Amino acid sequence: MANPLFRDRDLEFVLYDTLRALELTRLAQFAEHDRGSFDMTIESARRLARGVLLPAYKPMDDEPPRLVDGSVIVHPRLKALYPELAALGLVVATRPAAVGGHQLPRIVQTFASAYLMAANLSAYGYIGLAAGAAHLLETFGSDALRASYMVPIYEGRWLGTMALTEPQAGSSLADVSSRATPAPDGSYRIAGAKIFISGGDHDLTENIVHMVLARIDGAPAGTRGVSLFCVPKRRIEGDRLVDNDVAVAGVIHKIGWRGLPSLALAFGDRGDCHGWLVGQPHRGLAAMFQMMNEARIMVGMNGVATASVAYHEALAYALDRTQGRPETAKDPALPPVPIIEHADVRRMLLRQKAIVEGGLCLIGRTAIYADLAEFAAEPTARIRARQLLDLLTPVAKSFPAERGFEANALAVQVHGGYGYTSEYLVESLMRDQKLNSLHEGTTGIQGLDLLGRKVVADGGAGLTALGEEIAEAARAAREAGVEERLVGSVTAAMATVQALTAVLASKGLAGDVAGMMLHSTDYLELFGILVIAWQHLAMATAARTTAPTSDADRALFAGKQLSAEYWISTELPRLTALAEICRAGEDSYARIRPGEL
Amino acid sequence: MANPLFRDRDLEFVLYDTLRALELTRLAQFAEHDRGSFDMTIESARRLARGVLLPAYKPMDDEPPRLVDGSVIVHPRLKALYPELAALGLVVATRPAAVGGHQLPRIVQTFASAYLMAANLSAYGYIGLAAGAAHLLETFGSDALRASYMVPIYEGRWLGTMALTEPQAGSSLADVSSRATPAPDGSYRIAGAKIFISGGDHDLTENIVHMVLARIDGAPAGTRGVSLFCVPKRRIEGDRLVDNDVAVAGVIHKIGWRGLPSLALAFGDRGDCHGWLVGQPHRGLAAMFQMMNEARIMVGMNGVATASVAYHEALAYALDRTQGRPETAKDPALPPVPIIEHADVRRMLLRQKAIVEGGLCLIGRTAIYADLAEFAAEPTARIRARQLLDLLTPVAKSFPAERGFEANALAVQVHGGYGYTSEYLVESLMRDQKLNSLHEGTTGIQGLDLLGRKVVADGGAGLTALGEEIAEAARAAREAGVEERLVGSVTAAMATVQALTAVLASKGLAGDVAGMMLHSTDYLELFGILVIAWQHLAMATAARTTAPTSDADRALFAGKQLSAEYWISTELPRLTALAEICRAGEDSYARIRPGEL
Repeated sequence: MANPLFRDRDLEFVLYDTLRALELTRLAQFAEHDRGSFDMTIESARRLARGVLLPAYKPMDDEPPRLVDGSVIVHPRLKALYPELAALGLVVATRPAAVGGHQLPRIVQTFASAYLMAANLSAYGYIGLAAGAAHLLETFGSDALRASYMVPIYEGRWLGTMALTEPQAGSSLADVSSRATPAPDGSYRIAGAKIFISGGDHDLTENIVHMVLARIDGAPAGTRGVSLFCVPKRRIEGDRLVDNDVAVAGVIHKIGWRGLPSLALAFGDRGDCHGWLVGQPHRGLAAMFQMMNEARIMVGMNGVATASVAYHEALAYALDRTQGRPETAKDPALPPVPIIEHADVRRMLLRQKAIVEGGLCLIGRTAIYADLAEFAAEPTARIRARQLLDLLTPVAKSFPAERGFEANALAVQVHGGYGYTSEYLVESLMRDQKLNSLHEGTTGIQGLDLLGRKVVADGGAGLTALGEEIAEAARAAREAGVEERLVGSVTAAMATVQALTAVLASKGLAGDVAGMMLHSTDYLELFGILVIAWQHLAMATAARTTAPTSDADRALFAGKQLSAEYWISTELPRLTALAEICRAGEDSYARIRPGEL
Repeated sequence: MANPLFRDRDLEFVLYDTLRALELTRLAQFAEHDRGSFDMTIESARRLARGVLLPAYKPMDDEPPRLVDGSVIVHPRLKALYPELAALGLVVATRPAAVGGHQLPRIVQTFASAYLMAANLSAYGYIGLAAGAAHLLETFGSDALRASYMVPIYEGRWLGTMALTEPQAGSSLADVSSRATPAPDGSYRIAGAKIFISGGDHDLTENIVHMVLARIDGAPAGTRGVSLFCVPKRRIEGDRLVDNDVAVAGVIHKIGWRGLPSLALAFGDRGDCHGWLVGQPHRGLAAMFQMMNEARIMVGMNGVATASVAYHEALAYALDRTQGRPETAKDPALPPVPIIEHADVRRMLLRQKAIVEGGLCLIGRTAIYADLAEFAAEPTARIRARQLLDLLTPVAKSFPAERGFEANALAVQVHGGYGYTSEYLVESLMRDQKLNSLHEGTTGIQGLDLLGRKVVADGGAGLTALGEEIAEAARAAREAGVEERLVGSVTAAMATVQALTAVLASKGLAGDVAGMMLHSTDYLELFGILVIAWQHLAMATAARTTAPTSDADRALFAGKQLSAEYWISTELPRLTALAEICRAGEDSYARIRPGEL
């Protein structure tokens, strides 16, 4: 049986039964939509993912793009499938009709994309990056820039990138040193080196639009002197595209996402690299964060998708592969059993399942908050949704990366020695997953963001809103008949997180910022456990309140209940232990000196 | 600075100051030895590891052995270094003088090997497997077999393998189906297919001796009908070596250990594969377990070594790489700091350090128990050491594999985006590490072994002995002035494990074996946390009772104290949480049905 990537009914269950995404169609922005258009969007992506993208995945992993005479040549399979990928229109799916978009809710675009990501992360990467770049131009660019460089991306004719990172600066965008010198025509001449630019060059489209962070001559030091520029590979001059002095300085040999090249790019080596300011001077970082926050949620979806495809590989293997006998019936005259009969194999599968399902529900919920933050009718609803979105973004980005990597390693483990070979897909999926804890802000940076900014912003309004959401989920769960031991554990965990946050925040207010932030990664982890427990509670509730229409439904709902039991029973004790470590302020790594490591 | 693989003074500290390995020289078996011979053994391995094996590691990862006309051709670098590797004499280091050995304690051989493993797991693999094979012949083989097939291995002229696994049977050795048909000359004709045979063919030596599990015609089903055979690649006929009908059926494309081929082998396709029985008929599994138990400790050392070399890569990177500024001093006019200044980077380094140091001490201790079990003067001491060895073997095998993989992933994470590239060593080390949770019994199998056999064997004598050892370590720690909060936590954790074990064992005695074993992998994990906490307690004690002779000593000892604080403070709460899950018998994955996954 071919890998389903996601189980369709499960995805629908999360979308419609748990998160009630059809309620979004009551908003003016989405009024033209209904279940038919949602399903059609998802179905077209699903079909392409299963039929075309997944079969191309392994060939693309085996043979990464090549650098030939300074240009990147992609895999022929990718070249062949790209027109169909572009034709899905996902780059413009959420955008307003005014720019040619379909005004779909993000959750629909995200869940459609999930199939593409699960099938072939690299192939999806090209359009994901392009969508972010074009959206920046849409929001911050001049009319002229939008017409010249956004429209071709939205039409699927060009692609785009984010060009933030520089070799000497890494994650520290305050240290961006690429320069932008004003030119008489109102544009700028860009000069600088960028690294880790995904899709920074390729032969899929005739042009690539880079969104580049650089410093206008004389700009202040630090993040407040960084501006955003539109810097195409080929610039428009009259009715021609001419070379814009963006050169490939090197190909980075990545260990995963091998169908999508990661490049070092040199801008303006010949002094002829034209860039156009996007938004206000020195406000580039604020603009870039729009893209980055969207990107973080998509990275979260990458993580869930990569764990999901591996989970389905492992599940199929465990159902098919016979080996050994149960601990309780070891008679060698009996035939060996499918390994799914072994309790520890089921543990590994249920753990993967709980991570995937919890992650999917979280990403979906975060996408809904993103839409409500922009399009809810009431300003108070918009503000509340924004607070929840901001709070959940670091979790949505990091939980699937970290626990997804664990899930991917378990998928290898279920395959035994065979999982350690390139004959099976699980090893390359594990390699793919590792990037998600690194790009778009490492896990450590997400922890700093969550504890240092998000939970303390607006007097803790986001955390208060989360508490209300979880209280409401608990109320609904009790009403639906979910066991009190599960519901009570989740509400108790929320109280633990609130109390811990108060302790840490007062440490910070008392001047001990280093002490407050010392366990920020542990805090992120325990926060993630809570947030995922909430998703499982919501899914267990929906599984009880939705009428099954088939045996498959009944199995799905029983499985949801058991995922919830597993996660809540086994992970909340870990949350409690982590909270105690954070509270006690265990400070071994604060005190250790470099020479003692 | 070149990677040290292990820090020499640290290894000495564990060997001499913590584990007091020189006390072994009081035993008759090791009476010829002293610190000089111990150090010389380690130093010669260390020098070869750093100077020759490590530089060959990446080339060997990049270009795995090739299959040419049915024979495996290894990397030229390996071919060139093999004579020096063989000349170290580690294959025969622990063996008795009667067979040409040096009668060294295993801990010395193991710690010397640790450098080789850290530098180049694959290169070490050849001699590690050969040692196991030859030792089986030494213990169970006839005089004729020993003279013919053991001696050349001990002399470094030939190599050997373990050929257990069959495609249809995997970990389930009860299902071995290779056949052995008695021949008139007293030998057997072997026929069958084996898979995942590491070093199963190569051009390093003129012959390879396979230790093969097979079933004599008419043998009973299950493990009680499996016999062990010596099956050389080329058999001795007169003064010639003739082809023995062992063919390479395929090369497995492994994702790590890429310098050591893993093969599918076909025995006896032409009906001319001669094998000689080793030990008693149908008792092959018992014999093989001698080799497997030694192999499991060596796999543990593989895991520690692979985590150690990666830790030193990450440490060097974190000291060198500048990026960003501390949370408490973000002025962009200040220069960026080395990333080791960031608390979360130090967390990741200290975590790796604690895993590596705890693992090294555990492997060393286990190796000492192995020698005491064989060579202690008093029978009671031998019995007690055997009980502790048996109890600790599954932990020594699995802890470095599981937590080592986490440590290796953290080493990648410390490198940021650079860690995701093949320009740095950390990614291939992470790939290498993954095998250790799979071969020589998966982690799940180690959990079944620990809870199902080891802790309940002999009325729980091993666990009782462990409790006594930990009580003694606590007494010594208190006497040395280690903080009571650390000592008390470890003794409380031991009590938790004893109480939990009693609960689980009585569940089993009451007939609920499935319930007892349901959380065997969680039990293994929490048991490992305790055992490693014990090692840290012992090292913290030794760090207080050993007189420092240099600033480097003082830094090492301070670092030991902080490793102990970190591990005990952050991991024992996890042990408590896991114990509660095991005790409560959370049964979600017992109840879930395949169709609900």
